[in-house]
Amino acid sequence: MLFCIIACVSHAAFLGVHGYFMDNSIRLAPALIGLAGGSGSGKTTLAAAICERLGNCKSAVLSIDSYYKDLSHLPFEERAGVNFDHPDALDVQLLIQQIRQLRCGKTVKVPCYDFTTHSRCPETRAFQPKTVVLVEGILLLALEPIRSLLDLKIFVHAPADIRFIRRLVRDVRERGRTLDSCIQQYYATTRPMHSAWVEPSKAFADMIVSGEGTVDAHATLLIKHIERLLTDTTPQS
Amino acid sequence: MLFCIIACVSHAAFLGVHGYFMDNSIRLAPALIGLAGGSGSGKTTLAAAICERLGNCKSAVLSIDSYYKDLSHLPFEERAGVNFDHPDALDVQLLIQQIRQLRCGKTVKVPCYDFTTHSRCPETRAFQPKTVVLVEGILLLALEPIRSLLDLKIFVHAPADIRFIRRLVRDVRERGRTLDSCIQQYYATTRPMHSAWVEPSKAFADMIVSGEGTVDAHATLLIKHIERLLTDTTPQS
Repeated sequence: MLFCIIACVSHAAFLGVHGYFMDNSIRLAPALIGLAGGSGSGKTTLAAAICERLGNCKSAVLSIDSYYKDLSHLPFEERAGVNFDHPDALDVQLLIQQIRQLRCGKTVKVPCYDFTTHSRCPETRAFQPKTVVLVEGILLLALEPIRSLLDLKIFVHAPADIRFIRRLVRDVRERGRTLDSCIQQYYATTRPMHSAWVEPSKAFADMIVSGEGTVDAHATLLIKHIERLLTDTTPQS
Repeated sequence: MLFCIIACVSHAAFLGVHGYFMDNSIRLAPALIGLAGGSGSGKTTLAAAICERLGNCKSAVLSIDSYYKDLSHLPFEERAGVNFDHPDALDVQLLIQQIRQLRCGKTVKVPCYDFTTHSRCPETRAFQPKTVVLVEGILLLALEPIRSLLDLKIFVHAPADIRFIRRLVRDVRERGRTLDSCIQQYYATTRPMHSAWVEPSKAFADMIVSGEGTVDAHATLLIKHIERLLTDTTPQS
């Protein structure tokens, strides 16, 4: 029922973000909504749920996982030893550049990352600046230059045990990893990097939402906030 | 080095707890040290480490897991459905009675619990009241009548993710359980009962110690406290 109400929100309101035109079309600069939170917090699920409700015409999800640095220059055995939970593992400059381009209403070529080889694929993915761009990633709010480019900063919080269990189930079931390797990685990098970078970045959030419970309720609530944000920034005629 | 110092603490000091005689022997009432904390918090390891340092002549560990109610009157399939993380699963009256007997310097017959059949075995275990009795159990400090019988109440704290991982590793490796069954039980009873009973019982602790880090350091610290407690309650000649 709530979904229906939100889906009926005036398209005009959604199109009114920063209110300028590009390429003689009516494409407008997108609202950039950041979703951060620990691994397994539920941010990806929440971003997908928001996107599904807004529809693909109006929204898209940009994951900062696409911006891992290309490690093809390193011997293969050294690549797996890189700490992927540290900000240094990300190509932050490219991310900044592309977020700025998206803010200007430009389509960007998002890199495609091969997690099996820890290298960037030759092909890229064209990413169009929809009305709402949901940028999601563990370290998103830990990156100061990115924070200032976001229109709304959301941190998805879930207790540590729940985050670990979600991550474990995913890694064992979907990625065929062993229990031991999951625990080893969690203790070696995921957990200490969460404490050092992710948890402190919560302080920069405009809103902290729970990653527990039903995603429907949280998605509905956030869409209301996004809707308000879009309306507030719509130039009055 | 610290262990050496503690091990050299005068035996007389350890024998002077409540200072009365029984059965014409020089056995004295034990100091009852309670160790509570969530499943996987490290309380059992800490109790064992303290006991090892004090020596078997002076100390012993009493686990309240021995006091689960006998469920042999229930059909077998119903027994596994009982919530073993709730205080109602424990035979608190027997535990109170035996702790009181230990305080009076009496040897008690600790029940032997068969976790595979959820029933009490016919045989019992003679438990002698050593100078220091470490009573340990998840729900120990959640049981009001027990709290008042303890000379020192310690809560062992460990973060939820670490507690879950320790429990998972033990259940999978040592008990042959599946990942799914461990997670199911954790969500169904362990986690909600921890929130409802264990975590709130922390407020009743005299000391909260960390269940992380090296157990040696924590055991050493606690032995110093126990030693002080014993010295303070030794009647002055």
